[in-house]
Amino acid sequence: MTGAFGSRLSEVFTASGRLCVGIDPHSGLLDAWGLPDSAEGVRDFGMRVVEAVAGRAGIVKPQVAFFERHGAAGYAALEEVLSAARAAGLLVIADVKRGDLGTSVDAYGEAWLTPGSSLEADAMTVVAYQGLGSLTGVLNRAQANGKGVFVLAATSNPEAFATQTATREDGLSVAAGVVADVAAWNAASGRAALGSAGVVVGATIGLADVGLRESDLTGMPVLAPGFGHQGARIEQLSELFGSAAQNVVVSASRSILSAGPSGLEAAIDDAVAQVTAACPE
Amino acid sequence: MTGAFGSRLSEVFTASGRLCVGIDPHSGLLDAWGLPDSAEGVRDFGMRVVEAVAGRAGIVKPQVAFFERHGAAGYAALEEVLSAARAAGLLVIADVKRGDLGTSVDAYGEAWLTPGSSLEADAMTVVAYQGLGSLTGVLNRAQANGKGVFVLAATSNPEAFATQTATREDGLSVAAGVVADVAAWNAASGRAALGSAGVVVGATIGLADVGLRESDLTGMPVLAPGFGHQGARIEQLSELFGSAAQNVVVSASRSILSAGPSGLEAAIDDAVAQVTAACPE
Repeated sequence: MTGAFGSRLSEVFTASGRLCVGIDPHSGLLDAWGLPDSAEGVRDFGMRVVEAVAGRAGIVKPQVAFFERHGAAGYAALEEVLSAARAAGLLVIADVKRGDLGTSVDAYGEAWLTPGSSLEADAMTVVAYQGLGSLTGVLNRAQANGKGVFVLAATSNPEAFATQTATREDGLSVAAGVVADVAAWNAASGRAALGSAGVVVGATIGLADVGLRESDLTGMPVLAPGFGHQGARIEQLSELFGSAAQNVVVSASRSILSAGPSGLEAAIDDAVAQVTAACPE
Repeated sequence: MTGAFGSRLSEVFTASGRLCVGIDPHSGLLDAWGLPDSAEGVRDFGMRVVEAVAGRAGIVKPQVAFFERHGAAGYAALEEVLSAARAAGLLVIADVKRGDLGTSVDAYGEAWLTPGSSLEADAMTVVAYQGLGSLTGVLNRAQANGKGVFVLAATSNPEAFATQTATREDGLSVAAGVVADVAAWNAASGRAALGSAGVVVGATIGLADVGLRESDLTGMPVLAPGFGHQGARIEQLSELFGSAAQNVVVSASRSILSAGPSGLEAAIDDAVAQVTAACPE
């Protein structure tokens, strides 16, 4: 553990860039890779991605649903992949989108953000349908352990629009409210340039369409999925996020993974080059 | 599999009543029960609850966070508990509050709602921060497999209020929007008196405070946590839910579990009697 998550993330950005490679072993990709749709298959898939990313980029994001699909055996596979990724020096964001109340949500924080836990990651994604206040236990644990939390704010799917643009009593959209609550939490709890609490903002949305401004995202990590397969182009990074682009974790999954096990290294190198060109230090 | 989830739930209500006993092996309860805070401890805790509920009530709700806390070993324990509960004829609601998009959310549906999956339950809780439309794959899978889905609508914690009362463009609160979307999905997809898609509404909230009316809940299962420890009294069931009370799964956890392993049967019998008195058939 070396200091606050925001500082660690900044160091990774400097050393290895902003690209985050998804680890998404869904049945279609397993098939395309010639791997069985089993716990062993998702393990081998994950280990292959970790091996390819190590030394080329700095961040991976396992989508936990594809491991959970195989029950306890899938979780054992995930434990191996998480451990290998962290041993390889990669920063690991567990894409779990957990959320709950009280002791339940604390238990999720314990599972994913506790040093020594078999599921230990460097950060996790969470959902604040029950309010950011419901996640206080997870946020405090993250802060104490040098871990990070990414709270879903605005997502790229059209069905999300009605909920995420709904207007709270304070006049903010639900999405902007999450961002404001995260900013307030960072301001109250840390002194780092980049906070330990961040948000998830889909790369294919227009910030203004969900009531967000670039400046709202200042000082917080932004995990932006949707590059590549879902339609956002990496070269649009500054256009999409403006001054906040330098805080963005550029997440790409299918566009890289569909290159198959033999094309993986080249696809990662290509994406890294695109990110570097789009957002020079 | 015997028909649609709503019909199966109605049968359970008639045969065994509306009480749902939570399986919440958090560290405090494990300690009070004299069990280790380990995968073995959560397994033994879950098995003891299943044994006590069988023949006394009809529904259990394992809180998955407390099993996930112990990683793959905790999931192996959960598989045993789920399997024992279903073998005992109990209806099992996996309290997982999962939510995501596309193939990811489909993977969660596969894990929890597929016959033969090692994590098979009869229903799962989900979160629609990304819109009910993002959960279509899970809802369709539930319908096809005779399984149920409970979507978080209005929860009992005060920090949830700003989000869940925010006003959508169609004039509904976020909570009422979830309920309306669930009602529309049930209407479009089933003919059963009680739909396969339900909602979670905390027992300690006032429906009107979050923009809901009793009549909005007609025809859908309502999972209501918060009885007992969190402050709602079972005898208030009709007062709280009015005409919708007959669709309510009355969920109690800590108030029963805190009776300890030796007091469990009596606490369950007592809660069943209260539910029966509060909501006679």
